[in-house]
Amino acid sequence: MSNPKRVFNFNAGPAVLPLEVLETAQAELLDFRGTGMSVMEISHRSKEFEAIIQTAEADLRELLSIPDNYKIMFVQGGASLQFAMLPMNLRAGGASADYIVTGTWSKTAIKEAKKLGAARAAANTEKEGFNCLPESLDLDPNAAYLHFTSNETIHGVEFFSEPTPPEGVPLVCDTSSDFISRPIDVSKYGLIYGGAQKNAGPAGVTVVIIRDDMLERTPENLPVMLDYKALAASGSLHNTPPAFAIYVVGLVFRWVKKLGGLAEIQKINRQKADAVYAAIDESGGFYRGHAAPEARSVMNIPFRLPSEELEETFVKEAKKNDLIGLKGHRSVGGIRASIYNAMTAEGAETLVQFMKEFQRKNG
Amino acid sequence: MSNPKRVFNFNAGPAVLPLEVLETAQAELLDFRGTGMSVMEISHRSKEFEAIIQTAEADLRELLSIPDNYKIMFVQGGASLQFAMLPMNLRAGGASADYIVTGTWSKTAIKEAKKLGAARAAANTEKEGFNCLPESLDLDPNAAYLHFTSNETIHGVEFFSEPTPPEGVPLVCDTSSDFISRPIDVSKYGLIYGGAQKNAGPAGVTVVIIRDDMLERTPENLPVMLDYKALAASGSLHNTPPAFAIYVVGLVFRWVKKLGGLAEIQKINRQKADAVYAAIDESGGFYRGHAAPEARSVMNIPFRLPSEELEETFVKEAKKNDLIGLKGHRSVGGIRASIYNAMTAEGAETLVQFMKEFQRKNG
Repeated sequence: MSNPKRVFNFNAGPAVLPLEVLETAQAELLDFRGTGMSVMEISHRSKEFEAIIQTAEADLRELLSIPDNYKIMFVQGGASLQFAMLPMNLRAGGASADYIVTGTWSKTAIKEAKKLGAARAAANTEKEGFNCLPESLDLDPNAAYLHFTSNETIHGVEFFSEPTPPEGVPLVCDTSSDFISRPIDVSKYGLIYGGAQKNAGPAGVTVVIIRDDMLERTPENLPVMLDYKALAASGSLHNTPPAFAIYVVGLVFRWVKKLGGLAEIQKINRQKADAVYAAIDESGGFYRGHAAPEARSVMNIPFRLPSEELEETFVKEAKKNDLIGLKGHRSVGGIRASIYNAMTAEGAETLVQFMKEFQRKNG
Repeated sequence: MSNPKRVFNFNAGPAVLPLEVLETAQAELLDFRGTGMSVMEISHRSKEFEAIIQTAEADLRELLSIPDNYKIMFVQGGASLQFAMLPMNLRAGGASADYIVTGTWSKTAIKEAKKLGAARAAANTEKEGFNCLPESLDLDPNAAYLHFTSNETIHGVEFFSEPTPPEGVPLVCDTSSDFISRPIDVSKYGLIYGGAQKNAGPAGVTVVIIRDDMLERTPENLPVMLDYKALAASGSLHNTPPAFAIYVVGLVFRWVKKLGGLAEIQKINRQKADAVYAAIDESGGFYRGHAAPEARSVMNIPFRLPSEELEETFVKEAKKNDLIGLKGHRSVGGIRASIYNAMTAEGAETLVQFMKEFQRKNG
């Protein structure tokens, strides 16, 4: 097990994890801290697992400065299940919800919400090819909530400040792909959710942060696994939780704290993204970024080359250089570099050097 | 990492995993078969993950002799989410479903089904303290399906042959706690589901085996994560699946195949259970099994001692001897030994010796 091969992993999710986290998980895999059992084998009602989940929650609370009137839940089903649970729980009979549509994920979120009741787009940038943030919002003052996707993983557009909902309308955010990549003001939100598999851990667990008053909206008689109120009351332990995924997420939270917290990781993330965007901007049009400069995501950088043939060659050559996962999403094509928290500065720099070298040879 | 401490783990789930499976997962944790990435880091759209999920599916199909007109899905949310998805998908508007209630889990399943529509108990052994199988069934010939729980994890009662539904009524089974512990005739079922975290892997993935004609029942406009038809069509890849859990489940399927398949593992499981039940039966009443002899589970063996004080001492002394997880479920008290596939014959034998020694000292 010594000196395992490791590559630079630009996958959009599941994505790169901190090496230190993987090493800890590996070392503890057969015997979790003297229990003689793997984390996968211990009871979710044991004091050992209680410590894992409570520490993860406390660390996340510290990282994001989550106020006391918010609950944290670790649930299954991904952001995709939240697309349904959200309107089921927060949109009382007859009410409508507002959605800001800025890419594939917010478009999918409103589609799911419409299956279950009324929802309208407060803005929609599809005409612009989802390459920007909306210039203005058409807001419903009576909306059950205002939903936005803080970072669109496929189109690479990111909100750097929250949209302002009308007085009394709670703000709801899908933060799957920029979760814990920078500080945010949680007190502005009614609910925040995100799949772990980009910045925070493996696939199979989703974090939901919900303000206490939102829990009062849950209607009677929802199936318990779709009921925020019941899940929050159980402390994520209504049924057997995805214990190993929660354990790894907890290790990632601890790693982020050790690095210096979210302000520090934001600085590192910004430096990595700036380096890649500079390589695009200084390429004289050889590389063309998808997103408008003011909306450029710090996490996901989709860009194009002069031809699809060159894009294919780029992905192949990159792979030979151990730069993995650079193919753009099948729905938009091109190249996408996802540079989440765990992507090292060295990895981003190696990509930049590769881009320059590739342009020199093929430009 | 050499010589990790390992105990005999009688937890009811999450539960013991085969040592060989854990060792493989550990060895591959930083570099999955030369990719330079962990299984937790590879894309769920990569050819490496495709191979993982397709191999897992093929191995399960072979183990259970699953006919071609059944789909296999790996989903999130546990059996508890299936309690809701099942009636949402299989019970068309206005129809009623039948449930055989033989313990906590089938009781919970019918409770969830009633939240969403009509359901009735075709039998209910609660008056008997859930210690037996029903003597007769009161079956609705027009039921949308007949549901039973093949093994009740808490009460330790197990069906060894399927109940027979009326002509045209599909049989549905929650097999969470005896999944792949013995051969079954899948062709008798419309749908089979089970959480992995007892016999098949870590918590966080649930296996659903569904006959093709059942998929035609899914109504329009279900949220996609609750829609069997959409999930089956996507090959478990509608959204990011719990990749690491599926990988471990695949390793367990491979391990069962190597052991000789389900007929062989059934033999081993039966020998382990017989040894523990013999220790109970030969104790002259010191140990009293919960289940009636003809309903005794091969997987979960709940039993009582002469007093709660002795039960407490039993659990403590067992723990000192590295026999872990023997405390009964908080809802019924007493002792419970869960002896799933991965519990070794040595572990069961060590428990039997401990029981005899404990009785000698305290009887």
